[in-house]
Amino acid sequence: MSVLIYRPNNLCRETMKKSIIFFLILINFNLSSDEGMWEPYELTKLQKELKQSGFSKNVSGLTDLFAHPMNAIVSLGGCSAAFVSPNGLIATNYHCIESSFLQFNTSKNENLFETGFVARTKDEEKRSAPGARVFITTSSTEITSDVLRGITDQTESLKRSELIEENKKRIIKVCESSEEIECRVRSFFSGETYKLEKVLKIKDVRLVYAPPAYVGEYGGEIDNWMYPRHTGDFALLRAYVGKDQSIKEFDKENIPYKSKSFLKISAKGVSDGDFVMVLGYPGRTNRLLTFNEINWDLNIGFKESIKYLQRGIKLIEDHTNESDGSKLKYRGRKSGFENYFKKISGQNDGAKNFNLLEIEKENWERFLKFANSKASNVELGLLRELLDLIDESLDEALARRYYGNSTLISMAQRLYRNAVEQEKPDQDRKQGYQERDQERIINGIKRMDYSFDSRVDEAIFLDRLNSYRDFKAELRRPDYSKNLLLDGEFELTKKKVSKLYSSKFVTADEMMKLKSMSLDELDLSDDPLIRFVRSIYPETLVYEKKYDQRSARRQLLKSNFIKLLRQYYQSINKEIYADANGTLRVTYGNVSGVELKDGVYYKPFTTLEGIAEKHSGQEPFNVGNKLLNKISEKDYGDYYFESIDSVPVNFISTLDITNGNSGSATINADFDLVGLAFDGILETIIADYKYISQARSISVDSRYLLWTLEKIEKADNILKELTIVN
Amino acid sequence: MSVLIYRPNNLCRETMKKSIIFFLILINFNLSSDEGMWEPYELTKLQKELKQSGFSKNVSGLTDLFAHPMNAIVSLGGCSAAFVSPNGLIATNYHCIESSFLQFNTSKNENLFETGFVARTKDEEKRSAPGARVFITTSSTEITSDVLRGITDQTESLKRSELIEENKKRIIKVCESSEEIECRVRSFFSGETYKLEKVLKIKDVRLVYAPPAYVGEYGGEIDNWMYPRHTGDFALLRAYVGKDQSIKEFDKENIPYKSKSFLKISAKGVSDGDFVMVLGYPGRTNRLLTFNEINWDLNIGFKESIKYLQRGIKLIEDHTNESDGSKLKYRGRKSGFENYFKKISGQNDGAKNFNLLEIEKENWERFLKFANSKASNVELGLLRELLDLIDESLDEALARRYYGNSTLISMAQRLYRNAVEQEKPDQDRKQGYQERDQERIINGIKRMDYSFDSRVDEAIFLDRLNSYRDFKAELRRPDYSKNLLLDGEFELTKKKVSKLYSSKFVTADEMMKLKSMSLDELDLSDDPLIRFVRSIYPETLVYEKKYDQRSARRQLLKSNFIKLLRQYYQSINKEIYADANGTLRVTYGNVSGVELKDGVYYKPFTTLEGIAEKHSGQEPFNVGNKLLNKISEKDYGDYYFESIDSVPVNFISTLDITNGNSGSATINADFDLVGLAFDGILETIIADYKYISQARSISVDSRYLLWTLEKIEKADNILKELTIVN
Repeated sequence: MSVLIYRPNNLCRETMKKSIIFFLILINFNLSSDEGMWEPYELTKLQKELKQSGFSKNVSGLTDLFAHPMNAIVSLGGCSAAFVSPNGLIATNYHCIESSFLQFNTSKNENLFETGFVARTKDEEKRSAPGARVFITTSSTEITSDVLRGITDQTESLKRSELIEENKKRIIKVCESSEEIECRVRSFFSGETYKLEKVLKIKDVRLVYAPPAYVGEYGGEIDNWMYPRHTGDFALLRAYVGKDQSIKEFDKENIPYKSKSFLKISAKGVSDGDFVMVLGYPGRTNRLLTFNEINWDLNIGFKESIKYLQRGIKLIEDHTNESDGSKLKYRGRKSGFENYFKKISGQNDGAKNFNLLEIEKENWERFLKFANSKASNVELGLLRELLDLIDESLDEALARRYYGNSTLISMAQRLYRNAVEQEKPDQDRKQGYQERDQERIINGIKRMDYSFDSRVDEAIFLDRLNSYRDFKAELRRPDYSKNLLLDGEFELTKKKVSKLYSSKFVTADEMMKLKSMSLDELDLSDDPLIRFVRSIYPETLVYEKKYDQRSARRQLLKSNFIKLLRQYYQSINKEIYADANGTLRVTYGNVSGVELKDGVYYKPFTTLEGIAEKHSGQEPFNVGNKLLNKISEKDYGDYYFESIDSVPVNFISTLDITNGNSGSATINADFDLVGLAFDGILETIIADYKYISQARSISVDSRYLLWTLEKIEKADNILKELTIVN
Repeated sequence: MSVLIYRPNNLCRETMKKSIIFFLILINFNLSSDEGMWEPYELTKLQKELKQSGFSKNVSGLTDLFAHPMNAIVSLGGCSAAFVSPNGLIATNYHCIESSFLQFNTSKNENLFETGFVARTKDEEKRSAPGARVFITTSSTEITSDVLRGITDQTESLKRSELIEENKKRIIKVCESSEEIECRVRSFFSGETYKLEKVLKIKDVRLVYAPPAYVGEYGGEIDNWMYPRHTGDFALLRAYVGKDQSIKEFDKENIPYKSKSFLKISAKGVSDGDFVMVLGYPGRTNRLLTFNEINWDLNIGFKESIKYLQRGIKLIEDHTNESDGSKLKYRGRKSGFENYFKKISGQNDGAKNFNLLEIEKENWERFLKFANSKASNVELGLLRELLDLIDESLDEALARRYYGNSTLISMAQRLYRNAVEQEKPDQDRKQGYQERDQERIINGIKRMDYSFDSRVDEAIFLDRLNSYRDFKAELRRPDYSKNLLLDGEFELTKKKVSKLYSSKFVTADEMMKLKSMSLDELDLSDDPLIRFVRSIYPETLVYEKKYDQRSARRQLLKSNFIKLLRQYYQSINKEIYADANGTLRVTYGNVSGVELKDGVYYKPFTTLEGIAEKHSGQEPFNVGNKLLNKISEKDYGDYYFESIDSVPVNFISTLDITNGNSGSATINADFDLVGLAFDGILETIIADYKYISQARSISVDSRYLLWTLEKIEKADNILKELTIVN
């Protein structure tokens, strides 16, 4: 399960919607006790709240990115992780390493999903798929005025968009002083604030330990987002660098990275009520939306996403098979669809169960009352314009979802555009096509080897296209529609698409050749795919410009909105925090059971015995005998937890997390690792939109990790490397 | 839901099975703390256990059938109930009165399911369907030697069968000294012991109060057997007698029955852990089966029952409709099927989850070891013979289930047989056809008016017959098969059946005429139904005799088995109790939540808020606005229970109950009514076979009853009549 991986995609949040009267915007106003995905520096404002939750130390230790424990925290890009030894050992979730480590290393002779994997020596460690990285944040600096240099509120949108891009590129260029460093301009509060994030990028990452899938993803899709849970969602990687500790791609001569610090692992674990924190990289929340945005999601977006995802799952099921390997290639995509399908279904239900729309309406009225009495006419005008602009985007959102669902065409478009940009000096190129981006492009191509099948891609594309043509013409791209004959018989479209897919550029190898071609070569090519891409290129630029302009205007309008919002919050003495955006955050809370339905209490811990209880012999509840026997022997070892009379497997806490937090270290007040966060609970997953006090996150317990390493895997080498706290 | 109504039927327990080796019998050996459906007199042996559970009074009050509280407890025939006022007011479950009171009194103009019903004065009370009775047990006497008078172990089976029937009839004749008294010879421990039960039979019973169905059966089939539960499964009746307190059929001049005592109603209710008792009439448990019986049920019987019931539900769905009223007529039958389907499915799962077969095997080996070392060769021989006889019965069981599924034919057969028996002096007639049985026969005919449709009956019969013909010839009745042409084309059978159903005796009125016909008249009738019944009558007698003989032999063999069993129990110092058999029993235990799945705790109480939480506007979760408003107003009145911050709706306890306990008073140590038992929990319903400590029964809380009467119904007259204890 790719449960809390953050996958930026166009599903969760696109934009559009009809006439919402101006009076309804709407945000989540009241901060609950454990609410918040805080930037580390903000913790100083929360000393009192932290103390109430049971953290009595000074918070200053937590605000320093260069000190323990913050400098033990890393990102895998989409997942979070933490160093757990001085020799580059990293703990994260099993589901975070499935694609780049397990799928990549699985062959006919060796199925790592079935067997799991333990490297008994460093030599046995397995290398990763191309592009697997470990990112370590080394600094985060406010740079709003630098990003907006030369811009005023009066700057026309296209100019504004160009200036912002120019400024960003300049800032990054200066920042990326070496190959080892990656710099990112991050937008907070929808562009009200910009920060420059500097990360160290480790390029040689290896697999040290993964349990068999019956531990690592026990319960599979059935238990995904569910509690009580019994998933051993843990795995260990190791970061490697050159002998001089410099960043290197995979090389046998590389040596383990010496991290600045690492987390000790607690064998004592946590008890009910204990203080816990999660340090990680949450991907996205939607807690500061305007009301027309949230209203659209709740009334239209959720349902449309559910439809889109259900169809996607069915398409993969219908068009892939074991025999030609396509099923394995689309395993990741399908589980991603299933994961989001379940999540959005849960949000759809949760919105109803927690009366989200009504609560947000009430909240909004209070905000509006404040804005109407305190804001200037200009500010109110900008607020009105923001809502109009959002409505305009929402009007287009549904059709946009069905545009461009061909991986093949998208890849060719990207490479054609790349060739165009290559003609310019690096600094003048569009972001995403500069020198620094070439590696990412190459890795994207390489991924085709194990996650792309031309036949399947064509079938999915055709089905999406058939939905796209149902939209009225003004919501579709005219040239694209014309070239694909979308207003005629669909049989003709099919023939046209079939022609495109007769291109020779349908494998990673051929695509690599395409990448190396110059713009002139491409412009002379007779290949049907290239010809198609050329034919729609001018239109692509038109739409890109349109969206860039809108985005630049939106940045101005959202900044105004956030400014008003801040003022409102100040007036009621509340701190606000930026929506999750993939940057390092801290959330704190307590281990705690929860009652989500009258009469049913979810206990904070699950037990080893619960694994055996769920075991039916049928996937995904089909545990190996070694594990079953150890459980029935009650061989708990040092990891026995008296209050549950067993070894704890998973626990829930009030920690405020979301996708992207997968693999995050759950730590206690001593900063020892007591678990790894890996999931939320379906019933409260609507918390992405509004934090609710019943929201719970699920962590796999450090005691279950240690018990498995000792009793099941007998991985003495790993246990010896860890620093275990009793 | 007819959840805990005891419906004697041929589904739950028929008999048959293949070669089980002699070594495997099997019974439930270890008594758990709260286990037991005790006969009142047995409580003297349990003073210590009762005290441990929190009952510190002397038990002698409970063993006296003529003293409070036992003389407040009544049976409705299939359900239990209790007097709750000195004027004949009776509290029972809503689902116990649906058929005879609500369905019977519902017309196009007045739908009592929708509106509920409150009699504001006695004049408004509604009369019952024919045959609704209140039974009050007045004595229970051991009469084993009298039932077996003239019989020795050597008496041949047919003779044994005849003597037992003769003795029973004699005993009953002597016992039934007046019209008011009904006597029943009850078999305990499969005929090891017989008791004579004397009951007073009240014939005029009226409806005083029923909530709307959205309270009384809230959650419907979905929540049936489930917890957490929010069902207001309560109703009130009143027993009437003649002005001289003599038993009378319905008469306007009748006056309320003055019961010897009645239960007060607690407005304080119970708390978590409190001692509770249930006094009622459990129908049947299967805790003293031989191992080949239980093995057959677990491996074959459950699955076959599930198949049979599923098909039955589908047949009713397919062949009934609103427009001709057939849907309403088969409402009760369908919900009965659904109820048993769910129950047996739950037992099937429970048997696996609690490893029933393995546990029983182990237990058995201990019993067998004891028997082999202590029992005589004769006793061991009888034990072996019992298992063989059971195997023989089990071999026939599946086919028997599909024989005789025509209500029309069964009714005609019964009336024909009745005519045969009428030729004899009363004392010589077969049991079931004596004078004392005529009323029951008539009421059975009258029921056709509101629960029989000839077209539907024919369709169901044909389908069952089609299954019956799949059995090999030696498992079927030859004459019956021949007459219905079961070995030819099924089209011919259909024609034949169609002919039978062309009979004029397809309504209650016509059937009453048939009842009044003499044997000569019947023998001369040309009606196709009568002709058919005549044609298979000789064969019917042959099979009856065969089963009577087998049953008589079984009684001897089971007595031997039980004798050995008792000895075994004595050797390990355990008390045993007879399986439930529809007689008055006492069970005690404590209010207690339960963990049935790792990590999930079912709390002991549910709340008013839980009703609103489940309300979706869709049946069966569609509550009226009055109730919803009262809940949202938090107008708890005197029934507020601090520990749940609400009014409790349902609660669970360790009470050991089963079907037939429906409507039983749940009382506290002061003998005040704190609830009405109405259901078990699906996950532990396998307890009918073996008591398990996680078994829980569900009661509707007295505080919810009182709250509803006060806040929703404003039934001041009823509240005034009750004696409410604060």
